[in-house]
Amino acid sequence: MATAPGIKNTSAPPPAGRPRLSDAGLESIHRVAALDQFGASRDINIVGEVPLTIKVDGQELVTLMTLGARPEMLVLGYLRNQTLFGDPAEIRSVMVNWDREVAEVETREGKGITGVDTSKRTVTTGCGQGTILSCTLDKLYDHRLPPTEIRQSDIYEMLGKIRDHNKTYRAAGSVHGCGLCRGGEILTFVEDVGRHNAMDTISGEMWLDNISGQDKIFYTTGRLTSEIVMKAALMGIPVLVSRNGTTHMGFELAEELGVTLIARAKSRHFVALNSHNLVFDAVPKQVRFD
Amino acid sequence: MATAPGIKNTSAPPPAGRPRLSDAGLESIHRVAALDQFGASRDINIVGEVPLTIKVDGQELVTLMTLGARPEMLVLGYLRNQTLFGDPAEIRSVMVNWDREVAEVETREGKGITGVDTSKRTVTTGCGQGTILSCTLDKLYDHRLPPTEIRQSDIYEMLGKIRDHNKTYRAAGSVHGCGLCRGGEILTFVEDVGRHNAMDTISGEMWLDNISGQDKIFYTTGRLTSEIVMKAALMGIPVLVSRNGTTHMGFELAEELGVTLIARAKSRHFVALNSHNLVFDAVPKQVRFD
Repeated sequence: MATAPGIKNTSAPPPAGRPRLSDAGLESIHRVAALDQFGASRDINIVGEVPLTIKVDGQELVTLMTLGARPEMLVLGYLRNQTLFGDPAEIRSVMVNWDREVAEVETREGKGITGVDTSKRTVTTGCGQGTILSCTLDKLYDHRLPPTEIRQSDIYEMLGKIRDHNKTYRAAGSVHGCGLCRGGEILTFVEDVGRHNAMDTISGEMWLDNISGQDKIFYTTGRLTSEIVMKAALMGIPVLVSRNGTTHMGFELAEELGVTLIARAKSRHFVALNSHNLVFDAVPKQVRFD
Repeated sequence: MATAPGIKNTSAPPPAGRPRLSDAGLESIHRVAALDQFGASRDINIVGEVPLTIKVDGQELVTLMTLGARPEMLVLGYLRNQTLFGDPAEIRSVMVNWDREVAEVETREGKGITGVDTSKRTVTTGCGQGTILSCTLDKLYDHRLPPTEIRQSDIYEMLGKIRDHNKTYRAAGSVHGCGLCRGGEILTFVEDVGRHNAMDTISGEMWLDNISGQDKIFYTTGRLTSEIVMKAALMGIPVLVSRNGTTHMGFELAEELGVTLIARAKSRHFVALNSHNLVFDAVPKQVRFD
């Protein structure tokens, strides 16, 4: 597989106490020739998708298919969301090399991943869409979130700003987007071919910079399935907003873990689940039929 | 997790030479209370999502999150698409028990999965969205497909019939649908919370009944990512149609494996990639702007 264009592989200087990270983000929109329904040639944009194998102290852990926009944060977030490491300080460096399609993770201890049963991981890595969490639900009940007030006006303000961020989607489609928001502000926005990758990337940024989820809203274009709700709880984020729907297990977990789900959020429309703390301060004037 | 309603757990009599299968399909649309943007209570439909742990001769292999519509076929298709077994005759029975959220697979040899390096599987199970295939690409070049003529009129006929099949999506959303089609006919259609599950379920049906993919078209609501293209090649299906887009790796693999991609297929609109064999026998009269 040819590596995608726009590769940068320089190392950023390590801020004190933080993992040293490469800077290997990809700009990967490709232009390819297609035929439309009229039989006419058309060049279209399609998104990049590259494999990235995570190695921890030389040991292969997993291969993720990714757009590669912020691979170092994706790796950190994956390690966090799979509950393989409790603190980013345990990690000395994350070096992404696209020529080898590898992310080399070096731990401070140099002992790789400890305290994880490989056979167990074999079982659970495939859970849902490739995460361990579905099978480590017990851990998550420590993450039940305290009630947080959510304002309808903030949700509408945030939704109005998404179009300033989902640039890859608008150029090429076929990606999921996730945003970390405070009130109506979008603090960071990540697109990837996988909704889990996009969420894990934001989790990595929060982990690295010790950003609390407590006062945040997490936006995703993807469905609010069980694993997405579990990751939100793990990241300490009490509100999930999606333009898409939810599943019954996602809904049950949201109730159990204290996560509010704002589903089908598009324009002024939404359906809110487990939404005791939602303040209706921006009720639309007219009934809309979207 | 409470098991979903509509559980059937009776055993079907085994046709000669075929695996014995339970009949544990779920009807899982749930009605839950929500609040809409006006603050009004609304009951909405949401789809079921249940974990199903596959055990092979007692050994845990993986846990899938599924709608559970045809779990036995999902298990068979997963085992096939992960290239863990070459022939359904190697499998004596697949018994799904929702109370235990387990699918017990019994092999004829009783030796479980042989010839698969567990540590390797640990690495690769997470590939993309939880499949091994991304990391076993070499195998797939045996699956390069011969050229097959595709008629635009068949694609339109098939697209027109989808709405007769995607019942769960229309009732509750949040599922992907996959259809196996011959010409304009939809032979079978499966919905699941995961696009891979839906595709694997159809793969299981084809495997069990020894149905060739050569003269088939595979429809999916999901994106045509690398793994979907690889599975199509493995299933011997030369044409993938999606209402969604593709990725660059999906496109590259489609060229390498001889799979035609009909992306963005909605109404009369589509963009065709690697489409040398597409016959434009139903070109729309007027330019449409969808």
